[in-house]
Amino acid sequence: MKKTLQEIARIVDGRIAGDPAIEIEGLDNIAGAGATDLTFAVEPHIEEAKNCKAAAVMLPEGVEDFPKTALYVEDPRAAFAKLLDIFTPKLERPVEISDKAHIGKDVKMGQNVTIMPFAVVDDHAVIGDNVVLYPHTYIGQYAEIGEDTVIYSSATVREYCRVGRRCVIHSSAVIGSDGFGFTTKDGVHTKVPQVGIAVVEDDVEIGAHDGIDRAAMGATVIGKGTKIDNLVHIGHNCKIGANCLIVAQTGISGSTTVGHNVTFGGQTGTVGHINIGANSVYAGRAGIIGDMPEGVFCAGFPVQPHAEWLRMQALMKRLPEMNKKIKQLEKKLAKYEG
Amino acid sequence: MKKTLQEIARIVDGRIAGDPAIEIEGLDNIAGAGATDLTFAVEPHIEEAKNCKAAAVMLPEGVEDFPKTALYVEDPRAAFAKLLDIFTPKLERPVEISDKAHIGKDVKMGQNVTIMPFAVVDDHAVIGDNVVLYPHTYIGQYAEIGEDTVIYSSATVREYCRVGRRCVIHSSAVIGSDGFGFTTKDGVHTKVPQVGIAVVEDDVEIGAHDGIDRAAMGATVIGKGTKIDNLVHIGHNCKIGANCLIVAQTGISGSTTVGHNVTFGGQTGTVGHINIGANSVYAGRAGIIGDMPEGVFCAGFPVQPHAEWLRMQALMKRLPEMNKKIKQLEKKLAKYEG
Amino acid sequence: MKKTLQEIARIVDGRIAGDPAIEIEGLDNIAGAGATDLTFAVEPHIEEAKNCKAAAVMLPEGVEDFPKTALYVEDPRAAFAKLLDIFTPKLERPVEISDKAHIGKDVKMGQNVTIMPFAVVDDHAVIGDNVVLYPHTYIGQYAEIGEDTVIYSSATVREYCRVGRRCVIHSSAVIGSDGFGFTTKDGVHTKVPQVGIAVVEDDVEIGAHDGIDRAAMGATVIGKGTKIDNLVHIGHNCKIGANCLIVAQTGISGSTTVGHNVTFGGQTGTVGHINIGANSVYAGRAGIIGDMPEGVFCAGFPVQPHAEWLRMQALMKRLPEMNKKIKQLEKKLAKYEG
Repeated sequence: MKKTLQEIARIVDGRIAGDPAIEIEGLDNIAGAGATDLTFAVEPHIEEAKNCKAAAVMLPEGVEDFPKTALYVEDPRAAFAKLLDIFTPKLERPVEISDKAHIGKDVKMGQNVTIMPFAVVDDHAVIGDNVVLYPHTYIGQYAEIGEDTVIYSSATVREYCRVGRRCVIHSSAVIGSDGFGFTTKDGVHTKVPQVGIAVVEDDVEIGAHDGIDRAAMGATVIGKGTKIDNLVHIGHNCKIGANCLIVAQTGISGSTTVGHNVTFGGQTGTVGHINIGANSVYAGRAGIIGDMPEGVFCAGFPVQPHAEWLRMQALMKRLPEMNKKIKQLEKKLAKYEG
Repeated sequence: MKKTLQEIARIVDGRIAGDPAIEIEGLDNIAGAGATDLTFAVEPHIEEAKNCKAAAVMLPEGVEDFPKTALYVEDPRAAFAKLLDIFTPKLERPVEISDKAHIGKDVKMGQNVTIMPFAVVDDHAVIGDNVVLYPHTYIGQYAEIGEDTVIYSSATVREYCRVGRRCVIHSSAVIGSDGFGFTTKDGVHTKVPQVGIAVVEDDVEIGAHDGIDRAAMGATVIGKGTKIDNLVHIGHNCKIGANCLIVAQTGISGSTTVGHNVTFGGQTGTVGHINIGANSVYAGRAGIIGDMPEGVFCAGFPVQPHAEWLRMQALMKRLPEMNKKIKQLEKKLAKYEG
Repeated sequence: MKKTLQEIARIVDGRIAGDPAIEIEGLDNIAGAGATDLTFAVEPHIEEAKNCKAAAVMLPEGVEDFPKTALYVEDPRAAFAKLLDIFTPKLERPVEISDKAHIGKDVKMGQNVTIMPFAVVDDHAVIGDNVVLYPHTYIGQYAEIGEDTVIYSSATVREYCRVGRRCVIHSSAVIGSDGFGFTTKDGVHTKVPQVGIAVVEDDVEIGAHDGIDRAAMGATVIGKGTKIDNLVHIGHNCKIGANCLIVAQTGISGSTTVGHNVTFGGQTGTVGHINIGANSVYAGRAGIIGDMPEGVFCAGFPVQPHAEWLRMQALMKRLPEMNKKIKQLEKKLAKYEG
């Protein structure tokens, strides 16, 4: 693909400083961009971009004295994402239901659905318009997949569960596996039937190997627009709010409620049956062991405000020194007492 | 389904306080139960249940002055699980081996087996009576699956491995992947053939995305009645005892032996080649780095008795104060010395 | 299989102390070996091996006064691995492309390829000589699989990704899932297209349930000879060096570069966009939050030199005592002041 910088400026609503007739053939990051590529830079990378090989650099408004051809936009990162979508050649694939797929009885099938070989849509499932099912996906009985959702290879959506519109479910993700619920008598554990479902709302991304357990009763819910990285565990009956970011290997224990717009850094863990307030950020490997208010920035296990955690970490490194000082004090005092 | 409270009382061996002719149409938790539902309550939820909308509430013996129709039983949680199993409509599915499944040669197939489309049972495998294999399961050569076991979509049981009776293997679980064993010479790692197997005993539940590695030699064993949550790693040659509970994202390193009735909280980790005694509880994110006796309740990394861990955590938060006090003491003492 | 000790000695280039005519029928570890088996021992297990039931014991040169028939070699562990490979009966399987597999159009297929039922090789993929694809593997469009590589059941290699020669990809591993990249505006997250690829170089082992994300642009790279245990997350644009060992449940955040010959203990985590020097060892559950030099042995979160971490852990356990001493000092000093 080739586009002039002028054409690109129109797409991203940008302002050119330099030659608008330059032809752009590709997009790459600062280090990788060559003489016919467009790249982008935001702080702290703008200095680095001054010497890059790119034909032009997309920058945020306000950067001055830039020595190369520049395209100024409001949000270079978002504009670049938009261009990537345009510049990346789409894979060619017929929009069809493969005759090697298995479609159960009484399935309600939308328009323009792509179902690849060996995918299984079980009885009574509902598949929305434009859905794409990769090979080896399993859509259980009575499950529903919303319009424009893509489900990658070997992912599972168990019976009765619902996935919204425009979702992306990555390979080997499992939605609606049984919650971990048992009653114990005389040391023997008996399964509590997990008769609820899992609901993934619109615009959610579920990472590879995520496990979203179905509720014991009622529903486990992943809120609209939430994005989940790989290898994340969401326990039964959790209610995850809208627009959260859950980074890889995080585990949210059962019956925990999370407000909207919460970010969990990687490898975070929570106990179950707690409420975690909205608009918060938890640093990587946070361990949350009780209810949390809204609007916090926390770290550590057990979590504490991030600034306090930093202070505590610094003091922990000074423990040998503190210990030594205590000994010196004891010695001196003993001298006085002696 | 409809049952009178009288009929239900007979099923759970309970005592009614109120009208035994009430008709129950469904089961739900306290918050979700409507006017024709039965719910249950145990402490600390009994107060909350007094004002719920349910037609009747199942309670433990001993609760007095309950303002609604009550059904007293010994263990409300267990009784409710039993009722859930009865009230939940079973999915309809023909008991048959799909002609879209692949059955290898010399397979020993039990009675009443259900094998769904695109499941693969490889050569010489043994499938017990009443086994259910979901789509995209893979049962390797010479592997054995015991009676009444259910294996969900995309789960793998590798060659020679054995799964017991009445097990539940969740989607994308892998039983019998190679253990992580290498010899290193001049910085280059060479694979040690992993020629052992993995054995899952009767009544075990294996969570979604669990990986139970096969032994280098001999067998990795998951003991009878043990229940494993999602995303758990069990290294090669581990021997996990009976009736353990292993919560999500826990990792047990190779050649570790765990006694019966041990609970590992979520995200626990252990080193390899250790013995962990029976009848113990490890809190979430415990890090076990050596042999452990029986009958302990531990937390932290490295683990210590739970009460000590709590005390240590409390003191860690007081580090700034301790540090300040040491400085004050030094100052005062310097004054005396000066 | 039966081999005389003499024949075995020739295979492993060893020296026999005892009867070279002894017939060996199997291999097992010290505890499991019977009267016709060969086992091996290195410190600290040599004492234990003196009383084992094995017909002969493979030992490192230098062990004296061993009471049983011994076979001395340079590296018993490596020699035993070699023998295991010879003694283990190979599974019989026709070298063929199953007519129940799906091979897309314009696929470049090598010689002696084994493709099992319900595997999918999508359009334009390249499959090297001697490759083995288990059931339910998915090889995406334009993906390339090198010679002699084995890919187990339900593993995925997404479009354009490349896997080298002699690799082992375990069940349910995912190579080339989208990186976790979003731009956020007014609290709404928009996907950044992940148009790069993932490259797995030669001789790499990828564990069950590993997720190796594709790059946003360019490539995520797993270096030659690196071995990755189960349930590991490698974020987009990571460059992992050669001959690393990455133990189970570790997570490496995006755009992190790791030198060659680095070992990460289980459950380690790193932040993104850092450089981790070569020839280093990180203990289990290390948390790496910044650039690291070469040649270190570190532990803890945040990581510190292992010896310092041990000292800090010891002092943390003495916090109650330190706190008490501070109080005593205050009391005594108050007495003087009073």
